[in-house]
Amino acid sequence: MTTTLSPSDAGAVVGEAPLSGVTVIDLSHVYNGPYATFLMALAGAEVIKVEPHTGEHLRSRGDMGGAALPFAMLNSNKKPITLDLKSEQGKEILRKLVKKADILVENFAPGVMERLGLGSAALRQINPRLIYGSSSGYGKDGPYRNYPAMDLVMQAMSGVINSTGHPDHPPVKSGAALCDFFAGIHLYSAIMTALFARERTGRGQTVEVSMQDATYCSLASNYGMLNARGDAAPERTGNRHGGLGVSPYNAYPTKDGYVVVNSPGDRHFNAILDVIGRPELKEDPRLNSRGARVQNFQLVDELLETWTRDRTKNEVADQMLKAGVPCAPVRNLREVMNDENMHARGSLQWVDHPELGRVVLPHTPLNFEGVPRRPLEPSLPLGASNEEVIVGMLGYSKEEFDRLVQQKIV
Amino acid sequence: MTTTLSPSDAGAVVGEAPLSGVTVIDLSHVYNGPYATFLMALAGAEVIKVEPHTGEHLRSRGDMGGAALPFAMLNSNKKPITLDLKSEQGKEILRKLVKKADILVENFAPGVMERLGLGSAALRQINPRLIYGSSSGYGKDGPYRNYPAMDLVMQAMSGVINSTGHPDHPPVKSGAALCDFFAGIHLYSAIMTALFARERTGRGQTVEVSMQDATYCSLASNYGMLNARGDAAPERTGNRHGGLGVSPYNAYPTKDGYVVVNSPGDRHFNAILDVIGRPELKEDPRLNSRGARVQNFQLVDELLETWTRDRTKNEVADQMLKAGVPCAPVRNLREVMNDENMHARGSLQWVDHPELGRVVLPHTPLNFEGVPRRPLEPSLPLGASNEEVIVGMLGYSKEEFDRLVQQKIV
Repeated sequence: MTTTLSPSDAGAVVGEAPLSGVTVIDLSHVYNGPYATFLMALAGAEVIKVEPHTGEHLRSRGDMGGAALPFAMLNSNKKPITLDLKSEQGKEILRKLVKKADILVENFAPGVMERLGLGSAALRQINPRLIYGSSSGYGKDGPYRNYPAMDLVMQAMSGVINSTGHPDHPPVKSGAALCDFFAGIHLYSAIMTALFARERTGRGQTVEVSMQDATYCSLASNYGMLNARGDAAPERTGNRHGGLGVSPYNAYPTKDGYVVVNSPGDRHFNAILDVIGRPELKEDPRLNSRGARVQNFQLVDELLETWTRDRTKNEVADQMLKAGVPCAPVRNLREVMNDENMHARGSLQWVDHPELGRVVLPHTPLNFEGVPRRPLEPSLPLGASNEEVIVGMLGYSKEEFDRLVQQKIV
Repeated sequence: MTTTLSPSDAGAVVGEAPLSGVTVIDLSHVYNGPYATFLMALAGAEVIKVEPHTGEHLRSRGDMGGAALPFAMLNSNKKPITLDLKSEQGKEILRKLVKKADILVENFAPGVMERLGLGSAALRQINPRLIYGSSSGYGKDGPYRNYPAMDLVMQAMSGVINSTGHPDHPPVKSGAALCDFFAGIHLYSAIMTALFARERTGRGQTVEVSMQDATYCSLASNYGMLNARGDAAPERTGNRHGGLGVSPYNAYPTKDGYVVVNSPGDRHFNAILDVIGRPELKEDPRLNSRGARVQNFQLVDELLETWTRDRTKNEVADQMLKAGVPCAPVRNLREVMNDENMHARGSLQWVDHPELGRVVLPHTPLNFEGVPRRPLEPSLPLGASNEEVIVGMLGYSKEEFDRLVQQKIV
């Protein structure tokens, strides 16, 4: 087990942020790419967020104020600069940045960067150590590559919508923008894998992710049921298991909302029977094995409902959890935002944001033991880091910088 | 830009799989950890899947046959061995494996590995270059760390269920097991980040992810609406935008199912008006700006529905896509499984599986340009790689191996 420090990294210290010293050029917008670069920033990278003069979509779109917090959630600890990538001088500045960068991230539609003359081949010629990471709806090489793609569209195309909802109700999308975020975190994954490989080969590479591919496996239970039952498989199972292979597994009504229970094993089910005061049913052949409970899932659900209906969701969850039964209240977003577990871990933090006031912002879900969390720096206004990057990092004079600003290049 | 090859990696070749030469000990089960190690295997790592003699949960649970395909989806290209980790000899074999490994992955409840004497501190003492990656529902250091956690429970606790469904219907879980898979792909991310850092520090580290943290940001739109509108924010928006900030954005009925349309910009909306034969409405003040359409979203939805209702979902999608409008049919899983785009990209493949017959299996969503896809090797039966690993890799004699098998250590 020899330590293999390369000369340029001789100063690396155990306990230091894992991406310290890594520079990222972030051309991405809305959720997908920005989530990837958010995780890079919180892992210690220097992220330069390059936006058009109108701001990236999420910053500029009004959405009746609803886009403001999402923008703040995903853009902490980044350095925003403006750059007109359609101008020759703007492209020249981007190329200078690329020479100093380790990673470039974009989630434009396929072909946009090539049409600007800034495609991965061109940029990796300038800097062969660059990792060029892109994400799109359908990927850049399949027959659907030019279809426009957004989270709702991808939820429809990937089968998420048709698999969500009650069997007797129309299909409904997942409230979470899972296709966007699955793509973003897979993009982060591909880039980190390539960054590791670069340490061994000395060369960067182009990596690519599609929202469609990134979502597929999350429907594994449902594909399993389709494979096992064929046309007898229901399209949607409400709050029941996606493969209808577990019982109890459902949401149950309480006095003030719902609770969910998911108890695959006999041990869990016996604990439930003790909690609800029906221990005599432990020997009932309709209930005393996993297979029997799955066959008689309606009986199981009625049994639980009869008991949950007269209690509050937190009372039910407390009693079940004390008995070791996987159970939880169906919480609303205000409850989640104030979750004591996440605040204790530091993955949620109250922050005084200069534009939004006191808000809850996420820190990274990636925890590196012994590495302290990087302090959250609230997202900055459009172009706030222009001078720091153009003058400080690229070495333009103050006069040149002023001229570039005046010409709306920067 | 100098090439910084370290001595032990001098043989690394551009175009080679990025994780070739990396060895992974996989103690994980069901979806979360196995998805992370599936991506490692497909990126070229050697993944040794360690299971108890009963098989990991997903392999052993019947689920009326519904668990068979999910197991096959996530366990391609892995080497399964059996090991009794409660026996001293079984622990000793695991320690020998750890000495040869780069990465260990587990998603037991917090504390399980420590109670076996195989916690991250103990294992990293044996091999300081080891990356020890773990994933759990709530993380290992917060007040909820001992709560049992599964996907349904985490969807309830994280606000996904309460945010999913039609406003006038009860809340419903997402059909996709997003909490499990978000955790799995974040775990992969954390491990790759640490693997990169190891190249610079020479030391491994312990990384950790929770399902709860990994899901939070995917509800960004919904948090945005709550922040902007406070108690006036609806808990669920059906198929409308989670922030109610975009229109048209909905699922619309057709003759044979639904289509979705998501068109934030004026350009898209004008294209829709041309497609549906109502170009005169381009000047209508109720419709001619993004803000106006959001205010009059019911009018917008009626306008589209009137036109979609008399057509099939594929007819509607074809016409909209030709006009550049983000639109898609709500597809069922059979349609998705046969998606021509994913099959063309190789991210879905037809495979003759020895146990399941001809099935569709996913390849990795992580694409490394210039690196050919590793051929998919179907998942193997329990313990299929016992001899290869115990004799071939660890150097036990055939006689010792037979004895270990006889004693049910292996």
